[in-house]
Amino acid sequence: MPQFLTTTDPDFDAAFAALLTMKREDAPDVDAVVAGIIADVRERGDAAVIELTERFDRLSLTPESMAFSAGEIAAECDKVSPEDRAALELAAARIRAYHERQMPDDQRWTDGAGASLGWRWTPVSAAGLYVPGGLASYPSSVLMNAIPAKVAGVERLVVACPTPGGAVNPLVLLAARLAGVDTVYRIGGAQAIAALAYGTATIRPVDKITGPGNAYVAAAKRRVFGRVGIDMIAGPSEILVIADRDNDPDWIALDLLSQAEHDESAQAILVTDDAGLAQAVVAAVEARLQTLDRRAIAGASWRDFGAVIVTRDLDEAAMLSNRVAPEHLELCVADPEALAEQITHAGAIFLGHWTPEAIGDYVGGPNHVLPTARSARFSSGLSVMDFLKRTTIARMTPEALAAIGPAAERLAKSESLQAHGLSVRARLDRLNREGGQ
Amino acid sequence: MPQFLTTTDPDFDAAFAALLTMKREDAPDVDAVVAGIIADVRERGDAAVIELTERFDRLSLTPESMAFSAGEIAAECDKVSPEDRAALELAAARIRAYHERQMPDDQRWTDGAGASLGWRWTPVSAAGLYVPGGLASYPSSVLMNAIPAKVAGVERLVVACPTPGGAVNPLVLLAARLAGVDTVYRIGGAQAIAALAYGTATIRPVDKITGPGNAYVAAAKRRVFGRVGIDMIAGPSEILVIADRDNDPDWIALDLLSQAEHDESAQAILVTDDAGLAQAVVAAVEARLQTLDRRAIAGASWRDFGAVIVTRDLDEAAMLSNRVAPEHLELCVADPEALAEQITHAGAIFLGHWTPEAIGDYVGGPNHVLPTARSARFSSGLSVMDFLKRTTIARMTPEALAAIGPAAERLAKSESLQAHGLSVRARLDRLNREGGQ
Repeated sequence: MPQFLTTTDPDFDAAFAALLTMKREDAPDVDAVVAGIIADVRERGDAAVIELTERFDRLSLTPESMAFSAGEIAAECDKVSPEDRAALELAAARIRAYHERQMPDDQRWTDGAGASLGWRWTPVSAAGLYVPGGLASYPSSVLMNAIPAKVAGVERLVVACPTPGGAVNPLVLLAARLAGVDTVYRIGGAQAIAALAYGTATIRPVDKITGPGNAYVAAAKRRVFGRVGIDMIAGPSEILVIADRDNDPDWIALDLLSQAEHDESAQAILVTDDAGLAQAVVAAVEARLQTLDRRAIAGASWRDFGAVIVTRDLDEAAMLSNRVAPEHLELCVADPEALAEQITHAGAIFLGHWTPEAIGDYVGGPNHVLPTARSARFSSGLSVMDFLKRTTIARMTPEALAAIGPAAERLAKSESLQAHGLSVRARLDRLNREGGQ
Repeated sequence: MPQFLTTTDPDFDAAFAALLTMKREDAPDVDAVVAGIIADVRERGDAAVIELTERFDRLSLTPESMAFSAGEIAAECDKVSPEDRAALELAAARIRAYHERQMPDDQRWTDGAGASLGWRWTPVSAAGLYVPGGLASYPSSVLMNAIPAKVAGVERLVVACPTPGGAVNPLVLLAARLAGVDTVYRIGGAQAIAALAYGTATIRPVDKITGPGNAYVAAAKRRVFGRVGIDMIAGPSEILVIADRDNDPDWIALDLLSQAEHDESAQAILVTDDAGLAQAVVAAVEARLQTLDRRAIAGASWRDFGAVIVTRDLDEAAMLSNRVAPEHLELCVADPEALAEQITHAGAIFLGHWTPEAIGDYVGGPNHVLPTARSARFSSGLSVMDFLKRTTIARMTPEALAAIGPAAERLAKSESLQAHGLSVRARLDRLNREGGQ
C-alpha cells in the first residue's frame, strides 16, 4: 500500500515534507572505477575501448568493427515489422514537427546610443548520444535525443550503444537511421563516454554528450563535463496526477502504473480533492497490478514510493504539486487549462482525460527527457536549445563609444582594471583629437 | 615573450594543437574539505556558518547580523561618489534593456491530428548569487548576474558576499540595490554555497546558484548541483583578436592586456594576416606593460599563455578562432560583419575598431559571464534563460488520441512497457464502445 495522506491531518506537513525529501535511489559509488576507465581510454585509446568491451560486453571488436556498417544497419532495419516501422515513423515526424518550432531567432538592433547589439545561435558541431543496451534500450529515447540535435543543425551525430554478446535491438538502429544519426558504435559504459569526450584513433571526439545510462555512464558524464557539454543526469521517473471526482479510476490507475513499471525507484503520486476517487484508484491499482508482466517492479515502486493525497480543493492540489515539481504532471480535471495556470514547476503537463502520459513518451511531440528529482524547480526537458549556443554581438560606432565609453572607463577604475579603462580611453582620445581638428 | 606562430610553418599544426590543449589552471583539490564543510552546514546550520565565517573571514556574526540591514546598505551606498553611481546606473539600465529582449515567448498550437501542443516558461522561484570578497569583488558582476534573474521574474534574489574582517565594497551593495536584490548575506566560501543550497534556520534555501568564486566555491557548486541548479564553472578569462593591417597597434595591445590583467592564467591571442602588425602589437604590449599597475599579473599571463599567430588570410584566421572557441572575440577588420558570418564558436563577438572588449564588461548590454576554456563549443553566456525553465504542454482530444494513440500503444509494446500501452488502450476502448453505440 502506498502512503495515504490527507491535508487536514494535523501531521500532514511533516509527512509531506518527508515525502519531498525521500531518498529513492542508492546510486553505487563507482567514481573511482570510472576515473580509472577514463584515464585508460585517454592513454591507450582504441586498445582500451576494445579490451573493456571484451570484458564488460563479452564482444570482440576491432577498430574496423567498432561502428556498424551501412549494410549491417540496413539488414537489422529490415527485421522491423511494417507496423513497428510505421509507428516509429509517425513518432519521428511528430517529434520533429514539435522541435522545429523551438528554433530560436537571431536578433540584432541598434539602440538609442547608436550601439548595434544582438545575438546569434549556432549549433554544436558534433554530438554523441548514449543509448543503453539490454532492458532499457528504448528506440523512443533515440528519437527524443537525436531529433532535437538534427533540428538544431548538428553536423555530426553519433550513437554509442553497447551490444552485450553482440545482441542488438533492430528498432534502435531504425530509430537512429530515421533520426539522421551518422554513425552507431557498438560500445557502452564509461569507456564509451570517455571515447566520445576525448576521441581515439577511430572515434572522433564530440562536443556534447546526451542520453540516459547506468551509474557508470552517469559518473563518466559528470567527470567529462567541462571537456564536453552534457545533458542532465536523469533520476528515476515520476508522475503526479491531479484528479477531481469525475474520473475513471481505472484510467488514473494505469497512468500511475505506467510510471511505476519503469523502475522500482519510480514514484507515482495521486492528488485529489475527492476521498472517494482516492479509494477507488487505490483499488484499481491493486486490481491492475495483478495483471501486469512487470508487477514486481511496478508493485515495489507503488508500495515504497507511491502516495495518495486528499486535498481540501484543487487550488491546494496545485500548490502541493508545485512543491513536488514533478517530472510528469497530469491534470485530469474538468477545467485543466485553468488549473495549468496555477502550475509553476513541472517538466511536462498533460491536460485532460484524453492525454495519458504515455502519449508524451512516444508520439505526442514534446520531449520525454525531462527533469526528475524535483529539478523542474530550476531546469527544463531536453530541447533544440541543448544543441545550440548563443554568441552575443556588440558593435559600437565612434558616437556610441563617446556616449557610453566614459562610464565603462569609470567602472574599470573602480575595479582597479587599468588596461580595461585605457582600452576605452585610447579610442576616446582619438575621437577628441579628431573632433578638435 | 608570447608564442609567435605562423600558419605556413611546417610545425604549425602541432604547435597550435598544443596551444589548444594547454593547461592554464592548476586548481587545488579542495573537494574533501568542501565535502566536510557542506556536511557541517547541513547538520548544524547557522552555528556552522557562524563558526566558519569566524575562522575564514575573521568576522563574528549572529543569526541577526548575517544579512545587511536596510540601514546598513543605505549607509554604504551613500559612500559611493555621484560619478560612480551614475556609471553604475547607466550600466544597469543598458544591461536590463539588453536582457529584456531575451525573454522567450510561450507557444501553443493545434496540429493536424487535433492535438493541442506547446510550452510555457516560468521563472525559478529563488536564486542566490555568489559575489567574491576582496580583489575580485566586482560590482559589474553583481549587475550581470542579478539583472537577468530579475528580468526573468525570479521572486526572491539573494547575494552571498564574504566581508573579510568586516570590509565591504560599497559599490557591490549599490549594484545589488540597483539590480533589485532582496537580501545580502555577509557570508562566503563553501559554507555560503551550502547554506544557499540546503538552507539554515536563518537562510532560506534557493533553487539556483550563480556567480564566480574561488576553488572552494567552485567545488561546492559542483557538489550541490542537482540539489539546486548552478551556472557554469568559470575558468580564467580569454580574448582572441582577429586584426587586419589597418589597426592602431596600441589599441590592440590594450585590448589584449585588458584580459591579461585579470589573472596570471588569463589568455590573450592575436591572430592577424599581417606580420608587420603582429610585430607592432608585440612591441606595443611591451611598452604598455611597463606602465600598468598590474604589470606583474598581465606580464605573466602574456608571457606564459599569450600567442601571436600570423595567417595566410582572414578566412584562415576565422577557422583557427573557431577551433579555439574563445570567450571574447574581437574582429578588428575592415568588414567585421562579413567575418562574423564565418564564426561558429565564440562566447561574445565585438565588431570593429570602436568596440573594445572592455565595453562589454561594463556597459555594452550583453552579459559578461561567458563560456571559458573552449566551452563556447557547446555552451552560452549567462542570460535570462538561466533563470527560466520550460514546461511542455500536451492536450489530446478523443479524435487526436484515436489518430495517434495506436502508434503509442505499438511502441509501448515493443519496449515491453505494458501499462503504458494499457493506459492508451483503455481510453481507445471507451471511444470504440461509444462510437459503436
